Amino acid sequence: MIAVIGSNMVDLITYTDIMPKAGETLEAGRFAMGCGGKGANQAVAAAKLGAKVTMVSKVGDDAFADNTIANFQSFGIDTQHVRKEPGFSSGVAPIFVDSNSQNRILIIKGANSCLSPKDIDDAAEDLKKCGLIVLQLEVPLETVYYAIDFGNQNNIPVLLNPAPASKELDIDYACRCDFFVPNETELEILTGLPVKTEEEIVLAAESLLNKGLKNIIVTMGSRGVLWMSENQKELIGAYTVDAVDTSGAGDAFIGCFAAHYVQCGDVSSSLHEANAYAACSVTACGTQSSYPDAARFTEMRKQFDQ
Amino acid sequence: MIAVIGSNMVDLITYTDIMPKAGETLEAGRFAMGCGGKGANQAVAAAKLGAKVTMVSKVGDDAFADNTIANFQSFGIDTQHVRKEPGFSSGVAPIFVDSNSQNRILIIKGANSCLSPKDIDDAAEDLKKCGLIVLQLEVPLETVYYAIDFGNQNNIPVLLNPAPASKELDIDYACRCDFFVPNETELEILTGLPVKTEEEIVLAAESLLNKGLKNIIVTMGSRGVLWMSENQKELIGAYTVDAVDTSGAGDAFIGCFAAHYVQCGDVSSSLHEANAYAACSVTACGTQSSYPDAARFTEMRKQFDQ
Repeated sequence: MIAVIGSNMVDLITYTDIMPKAGETLEAGRFAMGCGGKGANQAVAAAKLGAKVTMVSKVGDDAFADNTIANFQSFGIDTQHVRKEPGFSSGVAPIFVDSNSQNRILIIKGANSCLSPKDIDDAAEDLKKCGLIVLQLEVPLETVYYAIDFGNQNNIPVLLNPAPASKELDIDYACRCDFFVPNETELEILTGLPVKTEEEIVLAAESLLNKGLKNIIVTMGSRGVLWMSENQKELIGAYTVDAVDTSGAGDAFIGCFAAHYVQCGDVSSSLHEANAYAACSVTACGTQSSYPDAARFTEMRKQFDQ
Repeated sequence: MIAVIGSNMVDLITYTDIMPKAGETLEAGRFAMGCGGKGANQAVAAAKLGAKVTMVSKVGDDAFADNTIANFQSFGIDTQHVRKEPGFSSGVAPIFVDSNSQNRILIIKGANSCLSPKDIDDAAEDLKKCGLIVLQLEVPLETVYYAIDFGNQNNIPVLLNPAPASKELDIDYACRCDFFVPNETELEILTGLPVKTEEEIVLAAESLLNKGLKNIIVTMGSRGVLWMSENQKELIGAYTVDAVDTSGAGDAFIGCFAAHYVQCGDVSSSLHEANAYAACSVTACGTQSSYPDAARFTEMRKQFDQ
């Protein structure tokens, strides 16, 4: 079983080419809602691939809460540790998409900012049954650190996806994670080093290894994935696909890596799976809706491998 | 019984001082949701005052639908003619409020644009029991016209609130309404005449009377209310109150007018009630949440009348 301890968000997507000025009211053509949030996306990707997933997350006491919980349950995710926070809205992301597919995004963390160490204590008995704890940075750092300590104390491997990028992340805690999975931008912000070329990315990753990090996995979009540890350096090239929508590709990668890693325990093969899965996800629109299930993934992979 | 045939919207309110540029993601502090839409607000105001109300409206097939219906029901409004429209979002209004209380508003009509003459036919048996039909312009004009004809054919008085302002409104249909209730801006846009002074407003209203309109009731904010018909001209001064939030005040006015008119049949006294009720509504924040119930309204009025 995988434990995803993290965020959920409701994407509130308005399709409009013009934004109102102060004092102005404008009509826009279309609106859509979707379930998102980095934690939720990673949980859904893993569950779609057949992994048993338990989610530790907070929703608000609003109309979105039941919908978010129902969405988790529709993928078989255990939601007994998804709790409602009185007096808070659910996490939401009002997103504005223009006809050139340019996005403007607001993030309101809402109830996600209430996920606390106590929530981890409350879920402790179930968390102890897990083979991997997956974390991101859309919930309070204090809670992320507590979850890392919990994993260490209970001999459960911990994966930390340091997203969204934060300079405040304490590298000492990153060192206590088994897998540290930034993208290039997050690596740049954490290290203060340039990441324009592959060589620069390797140097930046090495600077983290020198600080004591165990496994660094840098997702590099169309440049593929770099895995570095004390004894290992593996570069996995990206598949060439017609990218339609890259949103949520990083979460697809992590969800798939988690699903395979808890099954086989092998980092390299899990990375190859995750690399292929992320490639599949960018060929369709949306985040969770672009994640194929296991059967469809097998089918899509065959075409990649030809 | 009052029939409100019209819109419902979900207000999606983000409190933020900065708006994201294209390609940008920003964090905002707080988010709140509220039930709104002109039709829904008017129905809620009337119901809060004790009127029996049936709502004819369309919601989407999304997470907002049940919440909107439950909100109507919490005020005792009959929702058997509030239907879900497959494939459409509910009507929503993403609103951005900055720390100076300046608003930026987007309106996406969603399912409201699907309210059709057939929905009026489907509700016909219940509509025939009503003492007043209340209409606005957030649903298709074709449906508004059909409802006016329905009212005329069944000897049910019709009130039309021509909001939001539309130049496309056919004045012939406005003439078939018993009560035509614009604010100054709507009057200006409909007549093309200036409305800066009271004299100008009277002239603009007269121009509509000359076209055959029956009762014109112009809501003028802090200047009060003007009622004109062929034989009548009454100006009701506004109460002096500490206005906190004027949003939804026009809807409060119409809901209260409707509630009193179906009870007593007297236009002038209903206008005086509505004038006082709208004044109460601007002393509290929000739209529906700022509408007092009958008991609280009686209490607040006493203070006005001192």
